Amino acid sequence: MKAVRLVKAGTKATPELREEPLPTPGKHEVLIRVHAVSLNYRDTAVLRGEYPAKIKEDGIPISDGAGEVMAIGEGVSRVKPGDRIAVSCSTTWIGGPFVPEYHTGSVGFAIDGLLAESVVMNEQALVRIPDYMSYAEAASLPCAAVTAWTALNKIAPLQPGQTVLVQGTGGVSLFAVQFAKVFGARVLAITSSDEKAAQLKELGVDAVVNYRTCPDWDHEILALTDGKGVDQVIEIAGEKTIVKSAASTRVGGVISVIGFASGFGGGLPPIDILTRGLTVTGSAIGPRLDFEAMLAAMARHEVHPIIDRVYPFSKYHEAYRRLESGQQVGKVVIQVTD
Amino acid sequence: MKAVRLVKAGTKATPELREEPLPTPGKHEVLIRVHAVSLNYRDTAVLRGEYPAKIKEDGIPISDGAGEVMAIGEGVSRVKPGDRIAVSCSTTWIGGPFVPEYHTGSVGFAIDGLLAESVVMNEQALVRIPDYMSYAEAASLPCAAVTAWTALNKIAPLQPGQTVLVQGTGGVSLFAVQFAKVFGARVLAITSSDEKAAQLKELGVDAVVNYRTCPDWDHEILALTDGKGVDQVIEIAGEKTIVKSAASTRVGGVISVIGFASGFGGGLPPIDILTRGLTVTGSAIGPRLDFEAMLAAMARHEVHPIIDRVYPFSKYHEAYRRLESGQQVGKVVIQVTD
Amino acid sequence: MKAVRLVKAGTKATPELREEPLPTPGKHEVLIRVHAVSLNYRDTAVLRGEYPAKIKEDGIPISDGAGEVMAIGEGVSRVKPGDRIAVSCSTTWIGGPFVPEYHTGSVGFAIDGLLAESVVMNEQALVRIPDYMSYAEAASLPCAAVTAWTALNKIAPLQPGQTVLVQGTGGVSLFAVQFAKVFGARVLAITSSDEKAAQLKELGVDAVVNYRTCPDWDHEILALTDGKGVDQVIEIAGEKTIVKSAASTRVGGVISVIGFASGFGGGLPPIDILTRGLTVTGSAIGPRLDFEAMLAAMARHEVHPIIDRVYPFSKYHEAYRRLESGQQVGKVVIQVTD
Amino acid sequence: MKAVRLVKAGTKATPELREEPLPTPGKHEVLIRVHAVSLNYRDTAVLRGEYPAKIKEDGIPISDGAGEVMAIGEGVSRVKPGDRIAVSCSTTWIGGPFVPEYHTGSVGFAIDGLLAESVVMNEQALVRIPDYMSYAEAASLPCAAVTAWTALNKIAPLQPGQTVLVQGTGGVSLFAVQFAKVFGARVLAITSSDEKAAQLKELGVDAVVNYRTCPDWDHEILALTDGKGVDQVIEIAGEKTIVKSAASTRVGGVISVIGFASGFGGGLPPIDILTRGLTVTGSAIGPRLDFEAMLAAMARHEVHPIIDRVYPFSKYHEAYRRLESGQQVGKVVIQVTD
Repeated sequence: MKAVRLVKAGTKATPELREEPLPTPGKHEVLIRVHAVSLNYRDTAVLRGEYPAKIKEDGIPISDGAGEVMAIGEGVSRVKPGDRIAVSCSTTWIGGPFVPEYHTGSVGFAIDGLLAESVVMNEQALVRIPDYMSYAEAASLPCAAVTAWTALNKIAPLQPGQTVLVQGTGGVSLFAVQFAKVFGARVLAITSSDEKAAQLKELGVDAVVNYRTCPDWDHEILALTDGKGVDQVIEIAGEKTIVKSAASTRVGGVISVIGFASGFGGGLPPIDILTRGLTVTGSAIGPRLDFEAMLAAMARHEVHPIIDRVYPFSKYHEAYRRLESGQQVGKVVIQVTD
Repeated sequence: MKAVRLVKAGTKATPELREEPLPTPGKHEVLIRVHAVSLNYRDTAVLRGEYPAKIKEDGIPISDGAGEVMAIGEGVSRVKPGDRIAVSCSTTWIGGPFVPEYHTGSVGFAIDGLLAESVVMNEQALVRIPDYMSYAEAASLPCAAVTAWTALNKIAPLQPGQTVLVQGTGGVSLFAVQFAKVFGARVLAITSSDEKAAQLKELGVDAVVNYRTCPDWDHEILALTDGKGVDQVIEIAGEKTIVKSAASTRVGGVISVIGFASGFGGGLPPIDILTRGLTVTGSAIGPRLDFEAMLAAMARHEVHPIIDRVYPFSKYHEAYRRLESGQQVGKVVIQVTD
Repeated sequence: MKAVRLVKAGTKATPELREEPLPTPGKHEVLIRVHAVSLNYRDTAVLRGEYPAKIKEDGIPISDGAGEVMAIGEGVSRVKPGDRIAVSCSTTWIGGPFVPEYHTGSVGFAIDGLLAESVVMNEQALVRIPDYMSYAEAASLPCAAVTAWTALNKIAPLQPGQTVLVQGTGGVSLFAVQFAKVFGARVLAITSSDEKAAQLKELGVDAVVNYRTCPDWDHEILALTDGKGVDQVIEIAGEKTIVKSAASTRVGGVISVIGFASGFGGGLPPIDILTRGLTVTGSAIGPRLDFEAMLAAMARHEVHPIIDRVYPFSKYHEAYRRLESGQQVGKVVIQVTD
Repeated sequence: MKAVRLVKAGTKATPELREEPLPTPGKHEVLIRVHAVSLNYRDTAVLRGEYPAKIKEDGIPISDGAGEVMAIGEGVSRVKPGDRIAVSCSTTWIGGPFVPEYHTGSVGFAIDGLLAESVVMNEQALVRIPDYMSYAEAASLPCAAVTAWTALNKIAPLQPGQTVLVQGTGGVSLFAVQFAKVFGARVLAITSSDEKAAQLKELGVDAVVNYRTCPDWDHEILALTDGKGVDQVIEIAGEKTIVKSAASTRVGGVISVIGFASGFGGGLPPIDILTRGLTVTGSAIGPRLDFEAMLAAMARHEVHPIIDRVYPFSKYHEAYRRLESGQQVGKVVIQVTD
C-alpha cells in the first residue's frame, strides 16, 4: 500500500510517497482504510520546521481523516469491521480538559497520521460518522470543526439569543458560523472583502463588517448589538484584532482565542480585561467525546462542512500548496482511496 | 452629625467635612452608625478625577465600612437594631456575575458612601460580621477582600494542593495569601524587597521571589513548581508582569486580573494564550452573597485582616495621603466613631 | 382603579374585587398599567390554603403579568414611561442561584401582585418585552417559561444534538418544548392521550409516547435513543414518573424536577442515582437576568407562547376555575385592561 | 510468581492462589511489582455474584493497589523503572466525567486486577505516589479516597467555611472527613456509637450525632447550622438516611450519593428536591487526573489514610472476611510483597 512519510532535512521536512507493507493491528488497535484526509495550518508548519512540538521521525503526516474499519486487533470493543469512522486528534485525550501528556497521542505529529492508504490506530481515537456525511466531509472535521465546537462551549456554552462574532472565512470560522446557527445564536462576522461577506451571509451570518473599508469595525459591532457588545468572540486573527474584539464584547463576555493568523505579538491590556470583566481563553481542538457530541449535533441538523477542493492522493503536493496559498474557502481535502 | 462630602472642582474633587442632620431610613433602608471605613485606590482616583464612571454630585465618599444598625425603615427584614454589619460594594449586586446596571447601586460612587458618622443604606447591601472581628477589621473587607475571594473562585475554584501566585503586598494580595492558605493551597509570591518578602513569609507564603534582584522571576516560579507552572495567578501589576505571569502558569491555568498597578498598556500575545491554553479573566469585587460566604470562611479560620494604620475621623486627609504614598502594608482605616 | 385583594378566611383565601385609589411610586418604584396576567398552579394553591410560604395580608394576588410603565419614582433608571414590560417573580432575585431571602420579594405572595388595573412595583423586577409579543403573551412567561428556561440550563446547558424528555402539556412542558427546539435539541415527550400527542408533535416534539397505552414508556424512550437514554428530563409529574424517568436517562444525565403533579411521595432509590451517575435537581422559576436572556432567545426566534384562553378582568373567577379544571393546554390569561 | 485468580462457580466466584510465569509488558504497558492492595465492598460483591457488570473470566481480582515499576514496554512515557506508583480504577478514564465505555478498562473487573506479586498494566492507569506515603497507604486510595475527593468536588467544589455532613466510619466517609478539613470546611457526622463518634472527633469532625440515641438527627444537624442546613452531604447509607439528609441540607445544597449501605430502595420525594432546590448526584470513583490532583493535596497536607489492618498475602482470605464483617474502621490492606 502507499503511504507518505515525512523525511527530515535540517529543521524542515518533505513528504515522500512510499510503498509499504500493510500494517497489522495490535492490542486495542484498528486497521483503517483511509478514504480522505484534510489539511490544517499546522500540517504545513511541520514542513517549514515551525511546528512547536516534537514530531515522530519518518512519521506519516496529517491528523485529520476518515475511512473504513478493515480489521480489529485484540480487545477492541469500540468499533467493528465495516464501520465508517473519523479519527480524533489524540489517541489519549478522550474527555475533559487538555493536559500536556496528551501530546504523546497526537495523531500525525507524535504518532503516525493518516496520509496513507491504510493505517493502524488505537481504537480510542475513533468516532463513528453519520450516514449522511461523506468521507471527504468527515475528514474535514477533527481539527477545525472540533476547535470551533469546543471554543463555543468552553467557558460558558453559547446560548440561543446570544450573539457571537467570527473573523474571516477560514476553516474554524466557517464551522463556528454553522454551529452557532445550530445553537440558535446570532452571528456577526468581520472579513476583508465584499465577496467573502456575501459567502458568509449565504452561510447564515446575520451581519458582516468589511474591516478594510471599515477599520473601526468595533463601532459597527457595538451598533449592531445596541451598544452592548457581543457575548462571545471566536478570535482567529489575534495580534491585529484582539483589542477591537474586546471593545466589541459585552461586559463579562468571552473571547475564545483559537488562532494567531495576524501575528505573534500584540495583546489585550490587562486594564481592558479588568474594566470590562472579560474572559480571554485559549482553546485548541478538543477531546474525542466532544467530537462525538458535535457529530450528534451535526447529524441532527445535517450540517455539511464547506469543502474548498478535493485532490487525488497522487497530487497531495498540490493540496499542501493550496493551503499555503491562503486562497481556500473551506477545507482542502485529499481523496486517498475511493 | 458629621459627614464628608465630595465637592467638585473641575474634574477633581475635594472631600469636605460638614455638619448635617441625622438621615431617616425609608422603605427597605437602614440607619447605620459608622464605626470605621477603609480606603481603596479608587477612592483616591475620584479625588484626582480619574475614576472611570459617573459619581454622585456632592456625594459622601468611601465604599468600605462597618458599623452598627441604629434603626430600620419599613419592610426591612435582613437586619435589626444592634446588629454589627459591614456594607457590600453595591446595593443591587446580590448574587451571580456582574452586569453593568449594578453600577447604579455602587456605594460611595453612584450613591452616598460611608465617610459620615451616620448613613442610611438599603438593607440589601448589609452583611452581618462575626463576633471575633473588630469594626476596623470588617471595614477593611468590602472591596479588597471580596475581590481576592471572588478571584480565587471565579473560573475554577482554587483547590487544596494547587499553587497560586500573588504579587506584592497590596490589600488584595495580602487577602489572597490569607484566603489561599484557608483553601489548603500553596502560595508563591513576587515582591520588590527582602523586607516585604519576610512579611509575606510570616503571613504564610511558601516561597517569595524578589523581582528586582531576580528579573527572570518566571524561571524561579517554574522551578518552584517542577517546571509545570502555577495553577492560578492573582494578577495585580498588569502591564509589566502579565507576560511573565503567563510563562509561570501551567497549561490550562488561570490568570485573574484584578489590578493594573504597573500601567495601562501591555498585554499577553494571543499566541501565548492559545499555545498554553490559558484563561485570563478580569475580576472586580463581588456580589453580597460572596461577601457572606467569605465571612463564613474567615470566621471558621479566624482570619484577621492586615491593617496598616488607623486614623481618627478628624485626620481623614492623612488617611488619603497614606494611601497615595503607596507605603502602606495592609489596609488604611479611618475610625469614624468609637 | 380596580384591584383584587385576597381576603383570608381561616387558612383559605378568596379574591375580591375592590375600587382603590391609584398608587404612587416611591423611590425606585414604577407605576404600571397592567394589561394582562396569567395564572399558575400556585395561585390556586393560595386560595386553598396550600401555599407553603407566608403570604401578605390582604395582598393583591398573581405573580405573572405585563403592562405599560405609566410613571416612575425617584432614582428609577431601568425603565421609562411608555415602556412595555413584564414582571419577574421576585423583586430581589436579580441574578445567580436562589437563596431563601428572595422569598421576601416574591410578587403576588410576599408582596402585592398584579391582579389590578394599576400597580407599583420595584424597578428591579421589570423586564422590557419584545415588540412582536402581545401583553397576553408576555404575561404568560414569568413563572412557567422562566422555569422551563432555567431548568434546561441549570446543571449543564442543553446542547444542540442532545435529547430532552418532557411530560404532558402543562405550561412548563410546552415552554420546554419550544425552548429545546431553539437550543437545537431533539425533544421526546410522554402524554396521556393521542390528541395531546398530536398537539405536542405540532409544536415540534420529535416523538411522543402515550403513557396510558404504553405503561413501559421508559423502554420506548430508551429505544428512541438507541438504548442510551436522554440527556435531560424535565420532570413535571414527580412521584409516579421519576423512577421511569431515571430509567430513560443516560448515564451521567440530568433530571430537572420542576413539579410534583402526580403526588407528594415517591422518590428515586439512591442506588439508581449512584449506578447511573444521575443528577437530580430541583429548579423553580429563575432570576430576572435569566428572564431577560430568555426573552432575547424568544425574540430571536419569534417564539409565541401557547395561550389556552383569555378572560376579561370581570371574569377572573372563571380563569381560576379553568386552571383548576386541569383541562387547559397552554396558559390561562386574564386581560386586565386594554 | 504468585497470583490470585477468580474461579467461577455458577454466579459466584472463589479467589484461588496460583503459580504463574512473570508477565511481559507490551506496547504502552508496564510491569509492576505489587507491594500492597486494599479491599473494597465491590470486591466482595464479585465473590457473592452481586457485581452489576460483566467481569473477566479467570481474572485477577482487586482494583486498588500500589507497587514499583519493574520494566516498561514499547512507547511508555509516563513512568520509568523504580517509580513508586498506585493504580487508578480504569485504564481509559483519564479525565472528565464518566461514560459507560470506561467500564472496559475497569481494573480488577473488566481486566486483570492487582492481587498478584507482579502484574502488567497500561501506563495510562498509573499515578506516582508521594515519598511520605507507604505502599499500604497508597493502596488504600484508588476507590474510596478518589470517590470522596470527586464527590466533594462534583457539582460545586466544597469551599472553606462551608459545612459538609458525612455518615459513619467507612472508608469513603473517613477520607471525606480528612479531605473536607484540607478544604477548610466544617465537618459534621452521624454514626451509630459513641465509640465511633470519638474516633470521628479525633479525626477532626467538628460535631457528631449518634443516630441510634438521636433518631431525629436531622434536627440536630439543623441546630448545628443555625437552622440553615449543611452545604453538602456525602450520602453513604442511602435508603434509610436520604430523607433526613435532605432535611439537613440548606436550600440549594448538594447531596452526593456515593453508597447504598442501608438498602436498595427508598428515595427522596421529588417535592422535597423541588421545594428545597436540592441537587442529588451520584458519584463513583473518578478519573486518573483527579487521583493525581488528590495526591497533590494529600502530599501538601501529609494526609495519612486510616488503615484498619494489614494482612500478609498468604492470608488474603482473612482480609476478605474482615471486610465482610463490617467491623473495620478504615481500609483493609493485603501486603502482597515486601
